[in-house]
Amino acid sequence: MSKHEKIPTTVLSGFMELLPADQILFDQMKATIQTVYERFGFVPLDTPVIERAEVLLAKAGGETEKQIYRFTKGDNDLALRFDLTVPLARYVSKHFGHLTFPFRRYAIGKVYRGERPQKGRFREFYQCDIDIVGHGELGLMSDAEIPSIIYSVFSEFGFRNFTIRINNRKVLNGLFVGLGAAEQAADALRIIDKLDKVGEETVEKELGELGLAPPVVAQVLACTRLRGNDEALIEQLWALNIDNELFARGVEELATVVRAITYLGVPPNNFIVDLSIARGLDYYTGTVYETILNEFPEIGSVCSGGRYDNLAEYYTDEQLPGVGISIGLTRLFYQLKQAGAIQSGPATPTRVLVVPMVADARVPLELASLLRAHNISTEVYFDDVKVKRKLAYANKLGVPYVVIIGEDELAAGTYTLKDMRSGHQEQVDTARLFDIIRAREDIGPGA
Amino acid sequence: MSKHEKIPTTVLSGFMELLPADQILFDQMKATIQTVYERFGFVPLDTPVIERAEVLLAKAGGETEKQIYRFTKGDNDLALRFDLTVPLARYVSKHFGHLTFPFRRYAIGKVYRGERPQKGRFREFYQCDIDIVGHGELGLMSDAEIPSIIYSVFSEFGFRNFTIRINNRKVLNGLFVGLGAAEQAADALRIIDKLDKVGEETVEKELGELGLAPPVVAQVLACTRLRGNDEALIEQLWALNIDNELFARGVEELATVVRAITYLGVPPNNFIVDLSIARGLDYYTGTVYETILNEFPEIGSVCSGGRYDNLAEYYTDEQLPGVGISIGLTRLFYQLKQAGAIQSGPATPTRVLVVPMVADARVPLELASLLRAHNISTEVYFDDVKVKRKLAYANKLGVPYVVIIGEDELAAGTYTLKDMRSGHQEQVDTARLFDIIRAREDIGPGA
Repeated sequence: MSKHEKIPTTVLSGFMELLPADQILFDQMKATIQTVYERFGFVPLDTPVIERAEVLLAKAGGETEKQIYRFTKGDNDLALRFDLTVPLARYVSKHFGHLTFPFRRYAIGKVYRGERPQKGRFREFYQCDIDIVGHGELGLMSDAEIPSIIYSVFSEFGFRNFTIRINNRKVLNGLFVGLGAAEQAADALRIIDKLDKVGEETVEKELGELGLAPPVVAQVLACTRLRGNDEALIEQLWALNIDNELFARGVEELATVVRAITYLGVPPNNFIVDLSIARGLDYYTGTVYETILNEFPEIGSVCSGGRYDNLAEYYTDEQLPGVGISIGLTRLFYQLKQAGAIQSGPATPTRVLVVPMVADARVPLELASLLRAHNISTEVYFDDVKVKRKLAYANKLGVPYVVIIGEDELAAGTYTLKDMRSGHQEQVDTARLFDIIRAREDIGPGA
Repeated sequence: MSKHEKIPTTVLSGFMELLPADQILFDQMKATIQTVYERFGFVPLDTPVIERAEVLLAKAGGETEKQIYRFTKGDNDLALRFDLTVPLARYVSKHFGHLTFPFRRYAIGKVYRGERPQKGRFREFYQCDIDIVGHGELGLMSDAEIPSIIYSVFSEFGFRNFTIRINNRKVLNGLFVGLGAAEQAADALRIIDKLDKVGEETVEKELGELGLAPPVVAQVLACTRLRGNDEALIEQLWALNIDNELFARGVEELATVVRAITYLGVPPNNFIVDLSIARGLDYYTGTVYETILNEFPEIGSVCSGGRYDNLAEYYTDEQLPGVGISIGLTRLFYQLKQAGAIQSGPATPTRVLVVPMVADARVPLELASLLRAHNISTEVYFDDVKVKRKLAYANKLGVPYVVIIGEDELAAGTYTLKDMRSGHQEQVDTARLFDIIRAREDIGPGA
């Protein structure tokens, strides 16, 4: 190929591509999520990115169908997965006989949606999901575990000031039935869902326009105004005096879940029952969750989910109730970076750069192998350039330690160890080298 | 949807989907590869799965072009990546000014090839690549590091009996030039590449048919017969008396690389210079590698790669020499399972199943949180079923420990700990519980 006809290296719009330091930070966050999910006993699942279009479009419609990447290969009508829930439903149906229930699975993988590209929206993005799927039934303690998992993930990211908002769809649904407004429930929930954004006055007006009588609107607002995470909140719900079985079940579920969340050690300032949360109108049937970083409310919910009655009705007759959450990591990462809530560190995992200033490779290579055998990430910079350039390389990447091996060091059986952050330099033997390098604490990615 | 129209849950042919125990094993192998790559100072890179077709097809042709998944979305001519090298070339060209050279990157991700499906061939599969890319030049010590990385990966998989085969393309190319057979070199190398499969007699015959004189064929075979991993082998190469500069450079490179591999601690029985290895005819220009599991030779090479002169000529004028290897993990996993070389273990990461036989959730949940805070994967089985069924659940998944909490235990402030492998059961307090659980060694996936 001629020197003049080069192919443009542009990445498609809506596709994230990171430089090394950011990629390392992104991967650290991904690893944190994985570690927490496994600590709660979830099993990894990795389904194909490509499925038969028929499988993925079973339930989809409207926006999803327009956004999906669909194509043919040979005679096959194919599509790229647009979430991790539909593949889970297909997987559980297919492998039903080989799975043990409750089936606890996590999945961390890329999904694809051809959305109109705009800031913070991606066409290829990571979802990090967990679901607990029961066969026939699934106890309420699964609902209580979810906030504990969310709490662990965001704490380990380094955040302190976040709130997991919890509600139960049965309470709001039961409320409308109890108030004789069952017919308007779906529309009303959609209006309430905007409460945070548009304010109570607008919601009140719109609920009136739905044809709800002023006393009904007043009771609805009284309910959606409630917040709390202890018995007092539950008492306030009972005090609304709603005569409906679904409402009562919802309140009882909330009471049980709140108690268990406390036992699981989630601090009171990190979770709240918020009766205005109505998310996931069609799918969720019980507990619902969203998570707000209080210093960055403009990001919206960073982890959401809820309880559903039946995972896989399109693929199987088995009744598969479940509860799950999802973290949209690509968007979260982008927005946290934009907001300055996370900072990337070194552009390499390397902790030690060995710099030989001698021709014989033996000592430098043996030292590198020794360091690696002790799980210390190590590089050797052999190329015939000046020490200055090798130190600049370490500096640019953020390598904390450089070990220089010259003729003097060889003769003395020592190394010159340079701490790149302090600039301090000293002669050390192998034992002292390990002591110093190991003493250094690792620094996490968080805020 | 009616109970009778269910959508078939078939997975596309050529796409691997694993049950939990196998998925855990697969992920352990993937994590081992990642850990080793990072220990050698490689930076993670995660490029989009979808690229503009023009980018991916820059160099492709023939088979690759036929196999590629290509489709349009809106006005865009798109394709799924078929390897991780082309995206690396595009990435390095695009971000050249932001990278530090030598650039050491690893990438572990899915790639797509619409090959004719057959046993052990996959259309979606993981590649696990590393490359060291220099700017302008790249020293030979990078070539020497590669076998040390391969050795670490396969050792940590649990294998002992494997051989990393090394050669240098300059030796064979120089040999043919030196013997006055430069014109036949490419064809001859393709014949030699089959030596392992077809035997020396066939190769001799086919080399003759190329028009090489019998003494030339004899010298070629004398060279390709050479094996060794010390100075003796290098002496034998010099003794061939080939008067060619390229040949001489190749032998010198081999000598340097072999010495450095030894310094890096790769045992002599795990690597060999094998002059018959000719792989990667078009692309590689120096050291080449392949890796054989000696007990499973039918699998072929499980890790291959080599040195190349210029990574990204289609995208940039910068000269980017490099050296890299790739592990095709999906195929490797499938074949190791088929051969019985790896066995899956538990179907869960859970180490402790807490089994409450009391109504109050406090103590079981607090214990679960305590175990999790100490990084011990824990589940709580709350549902109102008999103990027997809960133990069966633990058994089926392979959970090693069950902690039963009944009224007696609550009263005494103890737990009943059951070791599911031995069946042994004892009353323990919290300290003893942790002692027992922590004493258990983790078991790796290897052979």
